[in-house]
Amino acid sequence: MVFRTQDKVRDYELDMQGIVNNGVYFNYLEHARHEFLLANNIDFAALTAEKIHLVVVRSEIDYKASLKSGDQYAVDVSIERLSKVKFGFRQRVIRLADEKVCVEALVVGTALNERGRPYLSPQLQALFADA
Amino acid sequence: MVFRTQDKVRDYELDMQGIVNNGVYFNYLEHARHEFLLANNIDFAALTAEKIHLVVVRSEIDYKASLKSGDQYAVDVSIERLSKVKFGFRQRVIRLADEKVCVEALVVGTALNERGRPYLSPQLQALFADA
Amino acid sequence: MVFRTQDKVRDYELDMQGIVNNGVYFNYLEHARHEFLLANNIDFAALTAEKIHLVVVRSEIDYKASLKSGDQYAVDVSIERLSKVKFGFRQRVIRLADEKVCVEALVVGTALNERGRPYLSPQLQALFADA
Amino acid sequence: MVFRTQDKVRDYELDMQGIVNNGVYFNYLEHARHEFLLANNIDFAALTAEKIHLVVVRSEIDYKASLKSGDQYAVDVSIERLSKVKFGFRQRVIRLADEKVCVEALVVGTALNERGRPYLSPQLQALFADA
Repeated sequence: MVFRTQDKVRDYELDMQGIVNNGVYFNYLEHARHEFLLANNIDFAALTAEKIHLVVVRSEIDYKASLKSGDQYAVDVSIERLSKVKFGFRQRVIRLADEKVCVEALVVGTALNERGRPYLSPQLQALFADA
Repeated sequence: MVFRTQDKVRDYELDMQGIVNNGVYFNYLEHARHEFLLANNIDFAALTAEKIHLVVVRSEIDYKASLKSGDQYAVDVSIERLSKVKFGFRQRVIRLADEKVCVEALVVGTALNERGRPYLSPQLQALFADA
Repeated sequence: MVFRTQDKVRDYELDMQGIVNNGVYFNYLEHARHEFLLANNIDFAALTAEKIHLVVVRSEIDYKASLKSGDQYAVDVSIERLSKVKFGFRQRVIRLADEKVCVEALVVGTALNERGRPYLSPQLQALFADA
Repeated sequence: MVFRTQDKVRDYELDMQGIVNNGVYFNYLEHARHEFLLANNIDFAALTAEKIHLVVVRSEIDYKASLKSGDQYAVDVSIERLSKVKFGFRQRVIRLADEKVCVEALVVGTALNERGRPYLSPQLQALFADA
């Protein structure tokens, strides 16, 4: 099942080429992941306060088309387990006007406890049980 | 009449204090101004393409309370004419959970044509006629 | 005595107008303040870890000229005491090629302890003794 | 031959975990690429003004260690030709205190002319002749 957020480009996210700066897509993707986690009862900020750090270890992003001023977009998120302690988020940024896939991404993450050791909390475990 | 946008804090907008970084409010305020202009048929990006630059010449911002992860907020915008070529945006960032005013701002702008001379287009003139 | 940092515009800081986005100057100003504090043995991050939060309560910024791609700039910082618990940073962003003042700012701050009460640490007190 | 830029973490680049936000590394990498190009007489902003757009089509980034407040870092850049119209930037973000590689990246780019067709200008061709 795919989780989806929707939003609209903000003009300060554009660069001198008049398109959303590539680095900003990383922000879009992160925000959608956090919303996806929240929808699954995993609160990134609360975990951080408990010293459990969800961290990204690798990102692969294909930039296929650009978003411009005024564009509305969706960010799709699905999750898969990659190993005992790694999970992968499959994500897409889609321009709503024409359903064009602008960005396609695989973001690999893990969770670390206070001592920096991999640690998947029960909620994260439960998330994967559904994956 | 007050124009209002609504949105939710994105976690990448927080800083090490766990609150929305002060600089980010400037982004919130800018986005709300551009939405306000758009609602009045003034497209910032289209004007820029025509070499008419809406520019901010001064900002006064009071930071009264902080937004945190998960907070939903509104940004209110109203406009007033300050002089022949300057207009002022009165803006507020309001935390929706308790209607707390987090930020109060006056942002002073003008419009410049291609030669860098103040120039208020007919649409901007019309906007002020209503102000 | 004026404290100065120097840096160069980064292209991702430009917006669709091809100039440094107004919100980015807030970042420049914050970075220079933190460097100024560090030069006076006040470490913003270390204070934050000790739950002493330096916060901005008001900013007044005049935007007088724009920085563009490739521009080198300085940020000047001086401090003054405004009240028992408030201090003001007088700051300027100066384009180095022609010494043009691009931004002039007054940023008013205070320090809060863990309970959110104003608290000026001995180092902050010492900073003002010199001001 | 490897090109290197050096800089220092700015506190607004940290997120609530107290480390440089993952998305910010994309900014560091972009800035270093533009400096590398400039050192090879290729001015990103000037090309953009001529409607030749250097664009990123794919990024692969491994996040191996974190930068924190006060850290100084280098960004290394080297280039390789991947196909007739694609080039790859091999990049590393290195913490200077201990030479730790924090980020390792491959960023794939191409150049597009005004009609959106791949176009490698003579300067870009020359850059590859040396690669």
